[in-house]
Amino acid sequence: MPFTEKSLIARIRQRAPSGGGVVTGIGDDAAVLRIPPAHEVLVTTDFSLEGIHFRRKWHPPEVIGHRALTRGLSDIAAMGGQPIAAFLSLALPRDLPQAWVDGFLKGLLNLARTFKVSLAGGDTAESPAGVLIDIVVVGSVPRGQAIVRSGARAHDRVYVTGTLGGSAAVLRGLFAGRRLRARDFPQHFHPMPRIEVGQFLRRRAIASAMIDLSDGLSTDLAHLCEESRVGAEIEREAIPLAHLGKPAKPVDPILALNGGEDYELLFTARPGMRVPRRIAGIPVTPIGRITSDPQILLITRGKPVDLPPKGWQHFEGAGRSRSK
Amino acid sequence: MPFTEKSLIARIRQRAPSGGGVVTGIGDDAAVLRIPPAHEVLVTTDFSLEGIHFRRKWHPPEVIGHRALTRGLSDIAAMGGQPIAAFLSLALPRDLPQAWVDGFLKGLLNLARTFKVSLAGGDTAESPAGVLIDIVVVGSVPRGQAIVRSGARAHDRVYVTGTLGGSAAVLRGLFAGRRLRARDFPQHFHPMPRIEVGQFLRRRAIASAMIDLSDGLSTDLAHLCEESRVGAEIEREAIPLAHLGKPAKPVDPILALNGGEDYELLFTARPGMRVPRRIAGIPVTPIGRITSDPQILLITRGKPVDLPPKGWQHFEGAGRSRSK
Repeated sequence: MPFTEKSLIARIRQRAPSGGGVVTGIGDDAAVLRIPPAHEVLVTTDFSLEGIHFRRKWHPPEVIGHRALTRGLSDIAAMGGQPIAAFLSLALPRDLPQAWVDGFLKGLLNLARTFKVSLAGGDTAESPAGVLIDIVVVGSVPRGQAIVRSGARAHDRVYVTGTLGGSAAVLRGLFAGRRLRARDFPQHFHPMPRIEVGQFLRRRAIASAMIDLSDGLSTDLAHLCEESRVGAEIEREAIPLAHLGKPAKPVDPILALNGGEDYELLFTARPGMRVPRRIAGIPVTPIGRITSDPQILLITRGKPVDLPPKGWQHFEGAGRSRSK
Repeated sequence: MPFTEKSLIARIRQRAPSGGGVVTGIGDDAAVLRIPPAHEVLVTTDFSLEGIHFRRKWHPPEVIGHRALTRGLSDIAAMGGQPIAAFLSLALPRDLPQAWVDGFLKGLLNLARTFKVSLAGGDTAESPAGVLIDIVVVGSVPRGQAIVRSGARAHDRVYVTGTLGGSAAVLRGLFAGRRLRARDFPQHFHPMPRIEVGQFLRRRAIASAMIDLSDGLSTDLAHLCEESRVGAEIEREAIPLAHLGKPAKPVDPILALNGGEDYELLFTARPGMRVPRRIAGIPVTPIGRITSDPQILLITRGKPVDLPPKGWQHFEGAGRSRSK
């Protein structure tokens, strides 16, 4: 049975988790949110477009819902913030089965519940082509404490959370025609935003600058360095590679450098700062240092080479999506 | 010359008005906004999709930018709020000329400047089909004072601002193959959000419930009545019709009932409330009353008939877009 727009809005409204800071949610001209006193508001928006960010034949609907919201939550994590509410703009082709929509909402709302995020509004439309999703996440952070990209200084140490390259390695497998089940490869199908890690780094004032790894280490590091007007040296051997399969094998290191969508955090800290090896159960690994020279270099067995931003092309021949 | 994504982000960043409540704008993982003390946050998101909400052959790029932002600002107006920042998610087909993008940004940013709204972020992507726009507007309102849809009570009077049916009448002309110039028909091409009117109604505590007329009077009145669990009686002869053309003629009254995209405000006020005939230069017209019976009736020369929600279909054969 194809979906109808009225049933879609009714279903979203019925199932949407609400409460928290949401005074007025779905069903008015705008949502009304309450922000804690002495806090600032964080806002991020992220497209997930069929054919650009996902394919329906590769990604089950639950996965598409989960990944779409992860993109937004990960941006809030990268500011050290607390997510409050999500807004879903959703355009659907007319012939889409209701079961697809139900699966999509299930994946999105399960992740929202995990982080106590309300679904507080959005927009619906018929799509001219494919499933079109734009997710907005609104969060809060104590005034003046958001961790921005521009705070890195020469001699700061560079860290990443978790392991890198796992999502891109799975995507490479999908491109090669392999059937990979969502439950076996959470790195790609169910990435988790590092909300607790981001908040820990903010509360302890550990991170001097931070960005989430959505476009890939080489590109996101370049964004951070550009905003901070610095450069960096990264130790190739220090980069924590994802391990996939049974028996688990490390991914191609090039995917850890240029593969996107790991949704780990990349941050810097002053040289004397004590940084835990593990935060909220997630490993934290030092991988290099910030330099005053604006070049970004990759050090392999002591030899430096340029590290150009070659963030993952989500789909060959398709354009990039980059926040802001 | 086709656009490139890097140049697009650079252009947006260079031209975007900033300041106001924006602490950190374009160029970080999320924007950081400051909300005035004792205020709540308003958030609204609205798609503008090629083929659904506009056609490139009918709508110049400046008009598409203006109309996309109007959709969001009008939602803030309908809450009695103050807009602070807009976020633009923009997916473009690869072959789109740079001049189109420049025109689009000009239309959007001119309107943003008019209302002192910062462009504080968004997302960009290559589009799988056509120009895809999602606009988010964030605003503020003093705590507890947002004018919601659910506040109408039996015996309240019903009012509309401005005149109705003008936008739909122009769209009907476009469908009929008429060449209509944007500067001659601002009702459709350059609708203005009623920000000042909404704020006046909130400050004076005049409106008991409010909604903006984006889908058409019959549909938006039904939304307001549904949320307030009431009905209404509307006097057909009282509805202020738009006048178009030279010499100016009133539009088909059916378009004032069911035509959308006028972006006027529909509000209710308690029976004893003094409501000015004109607010911020915009006429305000009483058109009926709220009833405890949940039916919505249209009274024509004293005779009541059902007024079903028949909001304007933006494009024949295409689906509706409805906020929340």
